[in-house]
Amino acid sequence: MKLIDGKAVSDQVKKEIAAEVAKMLAEGKRAPHLAAVLVGHDGGSETYVANKIKACEVCGFKSSLIRYESDVTEEELLSCIDKLNNDDTVDGFIVQLPLPKHIDEQKIVEAIDYRKDVDGFHPVNVGRACIGLPSFLSATPAGILELIKRYEIPTAGKHVVIIGRSNIVGKPLANLLMRKDYPGNATVTVVHSYSTDIKEQCLKADIIVCALGRPHFLTADMVKEGATVIDVGTTRVPSTETKSGFKLTGDVKFDEVAPNCTFITPVPGGVGPMTIVSLMKNTLLAGSKAIY
Amino acid sequence: MKLIDGKAVSDQVKKEIAAEVAKMLAEGKRAPHLAAVLVGHDGGSETYVANKIKACEVCGFKSSLIRYESDVTEEELLSCIDKLNNDDTVDGFIVQLPLPKHIDEQKIVEAIDYRKDVDGFHPVNVGRACIGLPSFLSATPAGILELIKRYEIPTAGKHVVIIGRSNIVGKPLANLLMRKDYPGNATVTVVHSYSTDIKEQCLKADIIVCALGRPHFLTADMVKEGATVIDVGTTRVPSTETKSGFKLTGDVKFDEVAPNCTFITPVPGGVGPMTIVSLMKNTLLAGSKAIY
Repeated sequence: MKLIDGKAVSDQVKKEIAAEVAKMLAEGKRAPHLAAVLVGHDGGSETYVANKIKACEVCGFKSSLIRYESDVTEEELLSCIDKLNNDDTVDGFIVQLPLPKHIDEQKIVEAIDYRKDVDGFHPVNVGRACIGLPSFLSATPAGILELIKRYEIPTAGKHVVIIGRSNIVGKPLANLLMRKDYPGNATVTVVHSYSTDIKEQCLKADIIVCALGRPHFLTADMVKEGATVIDVGTTRVPSTETKSGFKLTGDVKFDEVAPNCTFITPVPGGVGPMTIVSLMKNTLLAGSKAIY
Repeated sequence: MKLIDGKAVSDQVKKEIAAEVAKMLAEGKRAPHLAAVLVGHDGGSETYVANKIKACEVCGFKSSLIRYESDVTEEELLSCIDKLNNDDTVDGFIVQLPLPKHIDEQKIVEAIDYRKDVDGFHPVNVGRACIGLPSFLSATPAGILELIKRYEIPTAGKHVVIIGRSNIVGKPLANLLMRKDYPGNATVTVVHSYSTDIKEQCLKADIIVCALGRPHFLTADMVKEGATVIDVGTTRVPSTETKSGFKLTGDVKFDEVAPNCTFITPVPGGVGPMTIVSLMKNTLLAGSKAIY
């Protein structure tokens, strides 16, 4: 069994990005600039955005944080997005989700110029990724592809079972893993809450991606000998063992599943650290105008 | 075994559309208007476009045909698209594919205003369909959904195997059949040329969609008792039996597969007639501004 070290890979990718930025600066170009819009003071969102800003520093990017209180109107937010769309000094930006209920998230996502949509949530980027055209890939699927690549895990002709059909993980990952590329060329099955054959499907899988957000869902009796297991789950489970009072828990019963695997990602330290790195890669692509 | 009669369903849907158009006219609105751009004189394309124009008549739509010789420049074609995008009397339009090699098809597709893209090929429509937002669905997947609906074939929790991962059939259909809707909520597997387990996957499937374009690929030993089989293949196979010298042949070995099926589509007369109907439905949606 080999542990997939997402932390180590993410550090390595950030170093590679920093080297690219150093090259850009040496050529007289400016560093890529990521702006983040944060509404309200949700603990999770604060942490995510802080980590993104920190990652920008490591990569040598310029970053900006734009804060709004949670009573911001949709109109104000749209006008902020309009400004960022038209600000030539900003290469890419994100609006941290979730937003307060009085704001239409989809409207906000679609208001972002797709050429600056480094989260990859705009329909143009979703559609282009689906068709197989260059685009900003959304963070988690892109992070998983990067891990597969770095660990040289074969995917062509392999059976991949993805548990979960969300718009930000399951569906886009399925599209990416069936495309004519590496990672890709896989037989892809997506199972979800309506599926009656999850165990049967998983037992045949060469690669299982767990992205349903139910702690310890995948047990040893669902995984065939030698499979690769990628755990996207990060549920906060109450715990007396940690200072914070909770423990980040994956969708995989790691202790019993791991011994049978060829590769497996831990939680934390697996897919998690890769998501911010995907955002950094998109920002580099935006800064160097590599896609649009 | 019940035969899925695509011809009858398509006639029925066209009647329903014509009734909607009559209602629009009675309300003092104008009939939806579809324009088709046809480049060159390819036999297949000529037939397809002629059939689309004919279907418009049946539905009570206005239609226009814009012809170019195959030496048209990309610039001329883009300028034609620009005109159609800005022509308020045109609700939707298509550029019949394939185009001559000197023209970048993707560039043409992306030049079409997504609000008039009744073929559903523009990244915005592909992306919105993938996310589950209202959009113009591409013709073949939409036609298959319509057949499933009209024959009340259950999909929730069923295992659907799609053979073929094309951007116009396999991939969008997979996304649609896994969404939270009916038809949808299915466990979806996509297999293709790289898959090593096609037979094994098919044997477990409740519904098999064959869209790889290889005549008689699906044989009886690949289909479990009581499955539903949908055949998207339409390969022209040379034949001495027909006047035209060829016979439209599906991906399914119909004679041996059919007896074991609950439902099966024939070729011709199954999915084929539904594709034009999907275009008509999109044109009605465009004419009534139901999506954008």
